[in-house]
Amino acid sequence: MSTDPLVVFTPSGKRGRFPVGTPVLTAARQLGVDLDSVCGGRGICSKCQITPGYGEFSKHGVTVHEGALSDWNAVEQRYDDKRGLTKGRRLGCQATVQMDVVIDVPPESQVHKQVVRKRAEARDITLNPSTRLFYVEVEEPDMHKPTGDLERLCTALSEQWQIENVHADLHILQTMQPILRKGGWKVTCAVNLGDNENPPMIMQIWPGFHEGTVYGLAVDLGSTTIAAHLCDLGTGEVVASSGVMNPQIRFGEDLMSRVSYSMMNKGGAAEMTAAVREGMNTLFSNIATDAGVDKALIVDAVFVCNPVMHHLLLGIDPFELGQAPFALATSDSIRLDARELDLDLHPSARVYLLPCIAGHVGADAAAVALSEAPDKSEDLVLVVDVGTNAEILLGNREKVLACSSPTGPAFEGAQISAGQRAAPGAIEKVEIDPVTKEPRFRVIGCDLWSDDPAFAEATAATGITGICGSGIIEAIAEMRIAGVLDASGLIGSSAQAGTDRCIPEGRTNSYLLHDASATGGPRITVTNPDIRAIQMAKAALYSGARLLMDKFGVDNVDRVVLAGAFGAHISPKHAMVLGMIPDAPLDKVTSAGNAAGTGARIALINSAARAEIEETVRRIHKVETAVEPRFQEHFVNASAIPNSVEPFPILNSIVSLPDVSFNTGGGDEAGGGRRRRRRG
Amino acid sequence: MSTDPLVVFTPSGKRGRFPVGTPVLTAARQLGVDLDSVCGGRGICSKCQITPGYGEFSKHGVTVHEGALSDWNAVEQRYDDKRGLTKGRRLGCQATVQMDVVIDVPPESQVHKQVVRKRAEARDITLNPSTRLFYVEVEEPDMHKPTGDLERLCTALSEQWQIENVHADLHILQTMQPILRKGGWKVTCAVNLGDNENPPMIMQIWPGFHEGTVYGLAVDLGSTTIAAHLCDLGTGEVVASSGVMNPQIRFGEDLMSRVSYSMMNKGGAAEMTAAVREGMNTLFSNIATDAGVDKALIVDAVFVCNPVMHHLLLGIDPFELGQAPFALATSDSIRLDARELDLDLHPSARVYLLPCIAGHVGADAAAVALSEAPDKSEDLVLVVDVGTNAEILLGNREKVLACSSPTGPAFEGAQISAGQRAAPGAIEKVEIDPVTKEPRFRVIGCDLWSDDPAFAEATAATGITGICGSGIIEAIAEMRIAGVLDASGLIGSSAQAGTDRCIPEGRTNSYLLHDASATGGPRITVTNPDIRAIQMAKAALYSGARLLMDKFGVDNVDRVVLAGAFGAHISPKHAMVLGMIPDAPLDKVTSAGNAAGTGARIALINSAARAEIEETVRRIHKVETAVEPRFQEHFVNASAIPNSVEPFPILNSIVSLPDVSFNTGGGDEAGGGRRRRRRG
Repeated sequence: MSTDPLVVFTPSGKRGRFPVGTPVLTAARQLGVDLDSVCGGRGICSKCQITPGYGEFSKHGVTVHEGALSDWNAVEQRYDDKRGLTKGRRLGCQATVQMDVVIDVPPESQVHKQVVRKRAEARDITLNPSTRLFYVEVEEPDMHKPTGDLERLCTALSEQWQIENVHADLHILQTMQPILRKGGWKVTCAVNLGDNENPPMIMQIWPGFHEGTVYGLAVDLGSTTIAAHLCDLGTGEVVASSGVMNPQIRFGEDLMSRVSYSMMNKGGAAEMTAAVREGMNTLFSNIATDAGVDKALIVDAVFVCNPVMHHLLLGIDPFELGQAPFALATSDSIRLDARELDLDLHPSARVYLLPCIAGHVGADAAAVALSEAPDKSEDLVLVVDVGTNAEILLGNREKVLACSSPTGPAFEGAQISAGQRAAPGAIEKVEIDPVTKEPRFRVIGCDLWSDDPAFAEATAATGITGICGSGIIEAIAEMRIAGVLDASGLIGSSAQAGTDRCIPEGRTNSYLLHDASATGGPRITVTNPDIRAIQMAKAALYSGARLLMDKFGVDNVDRVVLAGAFGAHISPKHAMVLGMIPDAPLDKVTSAGNAAGTGARIALINSAARAEIEETVRRIHKVETAVEPRFQEHFVNASAIPNSVEPFPILNSIVSLPDVSFNTGGGDEAGGGRRRRRRG
Repeated sequence: MSTDPLVVFTPSGKRGRFPVGTPVLTAARQLGVDLDSVCGGRGICSKCQITPGYGEFSKHGVTVHEGALSDWNAVEQRYDDKRGLTKGRRLGCQATVQMDVVIDVPPESQVHKQVVRKRAEARDITLNPSTRLFYVEVEEPDMHKPTGDLERLCTALSEQWQIENVHADLHILQTMQPILRKGGWKVTCAVNLGDNENPPMIMQIWPGFHEGTVYGLAVDLGSTTIAAHLCDLGTGEVVASSGVMNPQIRFGEDLMSRVSYSMMNKGGAAEMTAAVREGMNTLFSNIATDAGVDKALIVDAVFVCNPVMHHLLLGIDPFELGQAPFALATSDSIRLDARELDLDLHPSARVYLLPCIAGHVGADAAAVALSEAPDKSEDLVLVVDVGTNAEILLGNREKVLACSSPTGPAFEGAQISAGQRAAPGAIEKVEIDPVTKEPRFRVIGCDLWSDDPAFAEATAATGITGICGSGIIEAIAEMRIAGVLDASGLIGSSAQAGTDRCIPEGRTNSYLLHDASATGGPRITVTNPDIRAIQMAKAALYSGARLLMDKFGVDNVDRVVLAGAFGAHISPKHAMVLGMIPDAPLDKVTSAGNAAGTGARIALINSAARAEIEETVRRIHKVETAVEPRFQEHFVNASAIPNSVEPFPILNSIVSLPDVSFNTGGGDEAGGGRRRRRRG
């Protein structure tokens, strides 16, 4: 044996000696090297391409001579003629070992290839889909050994692919017999490889060798929008993405209004369930059409959502989620058939819902945890998913804590006098000159600042229609930096602030950001009630984070990740001026985009990540803000801008906030969001 | 420990020492004694009743004194006041061990009680249903440990009943939360305990302690009729039985005509599938209504059927079953949800189909094997299920062989000139006086013989309408015994046979059984074509059996079991005169009634029998008659009455068959069913 040629595989470094004539694919399989094959070494699929290296490999202690592999053979020649084989490549099932050799497995020949994420700090995703294609040759029926066609197909999958205990739904039984005969007892099967709850399942059969793929959906089912990525399960790539408004909006804008709808209307929950399922079917049809993909080839779907959406999707009345102790009907991950949710995909399509962390911290937060992996972080990371509810995770390799905090819809532009959704024409960036107190801004859909001479023309089409969530945060933070707004959240009068842009409005003042009223356009101001709404929201967010820091026993975090579509547009500096997030170096405040959607995509294309996040969720410590006395205290402190107690030293080293106070002593206008009624 | 009291349980004989004060139920559980309990020892369900024995038990070496168990307590008193406890009985969860004691567990307190079958030779059925009731107390939700209600319910089932890895379908998730609260976190669950393919599943939840049961269906899906037994899964008892015609009859009377219908008509198979499923839903509704049972409490169903019905039920085109090599789409047993078959039962009701033995030997034959257990027989038993196809099993503890043989519908009265279904008015028994050659007979619905003076009046209502399957067999056998019919199957002329009842009809003769033509009634004859049809059918049956005997290497069988509704009415002597079955002592020829239906019932109420029959079917040797050369030879020999080659010594010791021959040499009228055309 010791004189057999040595085979070294890269990049794995796995090595072993094999008799002369061993196919490279066989050697790879015996060593457990990740080398793809759909046809099982029959020279059909060309998935097992490898690149032999020649010359001196001192690292491996091997010299590879010409002739280390067998000569180019007829199968390879035929493939090269038909499809073209990249120069230097061989088919692993055809090339056999002759002498010591170093074999490189290129990424595209690996089953478990890495799908690279764009963000520098994000870990790559290992491709490991639920469903893969396998080519098999099936024994023909024999009167003397009267087993069924299915049983012989399963035997072939077991003998040729070591896939044991395979099942098949009725639609396979109903369609399989003519396909087997058409393929001359050679077929390609898409097999869902199963998990700890379900056995492997034959999803689809094609006659002969089938060159194709199957698809999966990663769905972020939000209260407001439903977003889905259609992924190729063979490559892990997103082939199309799309979103629709959640049709449940007609029953209530936010979650609690939907819970009350179900409480006030008999059958209301069922109505909302039907609406969201119907909405998803429409979305899935559209996305499949966009991508030119047959919807019946979508074999897997992963859903992430908050607990109320989770229950409504499953047809569970969310009643209990509306009152303490916020009991979930079920907290664990859920695996079911798509047809149980009336979803019109492949007839045996599977659905996976990530586990919920708690009654207020849903599968969306679990997905954020999967994407951002605080449990694998060396330093202490705070992850906030900013939406109508903020889901907050704090942790590192040792421990992860989670809570949710009811920020309300202010960050999304609701409850703001000039607020609007993030859409062309919405103010998204604001700067206020600290000397002149004059603002300039940018709107969505235009790269110019408003003081640019070309701005008016450039925005003529969209107009300037309002302020979106990130715009209001910048506006308020800039007002605070410019001394137009005091720490308690009061806007100064024109005299106090030294600018005519401060104008009285009722008993308080507003700051005029843009006035197009002379030409019939809107008049966009930031009012004191706007400030109050943002104060409430940011105080809820901060106090949730601060509560987790208390529980963790720290006063600082090493870094902050802002997740959620909104989080992607927040300026870290302005968020910190507002005191939304704890004090941290600005370059340590990053955006993760739609981390919940990414988490769904990870769970979709790497099915091993499902067990991983289930285990992580089990280990996450849940903190219920509603019953924590310190939450109230933090909330009151955090109502000030940035905070009445916390020092924010890093922020103070970057900006110095004017020490102004516009409270004329007449009342308790500031702090805590509480307001005492007083006489005119 | 050795001074602890000794507890001996009967009838199991299990014994052990337990500390004073141990409840009897606890002792039973620790020893693995089969003592029922739904409430888990909380004194609610009264299922754990036991009878202590007092005095000398020399067999066990124990003397039991008064006071061996604790005194009657308040819980027992309350139960006795409310329901009445049989004298001498105690509640096993309340009575505690004080001194050495012998405890009898009465059958009704055993979970795995024996369900007694009426036939002496049949083994009792061990009750072991898929689904049982369990009372649990569930931990209340807690904001600080935010698990779902389902997860806490599953924990309760695990901790209180050792049922692990329980699942629940969506309808449970959708209804569970109010039930848990209504029951004050005490509920009764119906749990399907799962099998090697499926995990345990919560089927139903009731608030508090629920005194009730769940049901199952044993369904014999025949080509002509669908028969179902509704069984109480708590007791194993049949609470209602019913049948309907298989609505597929409109697509073809026999199996092959249905296979051709599907071949000739696009969508024909689907049409037949819809028809049979619809027919079953009607049947199930009727049977539930008859029994006063809520159809939604039917949680389990077992189906037996031949391969064509099996495929049509599952929605599989039976095309391949119509041609060699008769490939089944699937041969193994099938477990699925009732809703996959569009069956309207409990929303999570499970369906089990017994395995098929071969392309012509279906799940019905497997069910016969389960009921008659040839694989457990000490002596060599031949089991024939007589229908349109005969399923034949031959075996003993060492080996079981199986085949099917195409008998055709003659045994059911089809293809017989005066043939009819077994219904009032049909001749079912015949005797012919060997001297006078005069017949007498009985008809279904009347216990008198036709030579009784009261016969005419007694049958006036039904009339005498034709001959059913068992009637034609007796008639032909009696004709053979009386010398009216020769061994080749020719009826003698009136001169040859010596009776005017033999009348010429075309080129052959008929025997006049009954003539009411003078009064406008029917004229019932047995014609030569009738003889031919029966000859073909019985030759097919016999040659199948004989082929299995060849394969087994025997010339005799120890006993014969006739299964099928028709089998129940066949007279063993007449069957043997015809040469339908091999020579055997008459008292060793017994009827098993609807053994396939019984097999379905066994698999329903004893879920462990499912794995058992699957293993048995794997070990059965299948013989395909169509390709066995000796089958033809046996068939030709068996065309003679009783047989041209086989000696039938036991039959000859009982009756002596006249050595007559009515072949006048003009043609080959007899034998093999072949006929040479000759000129007038």
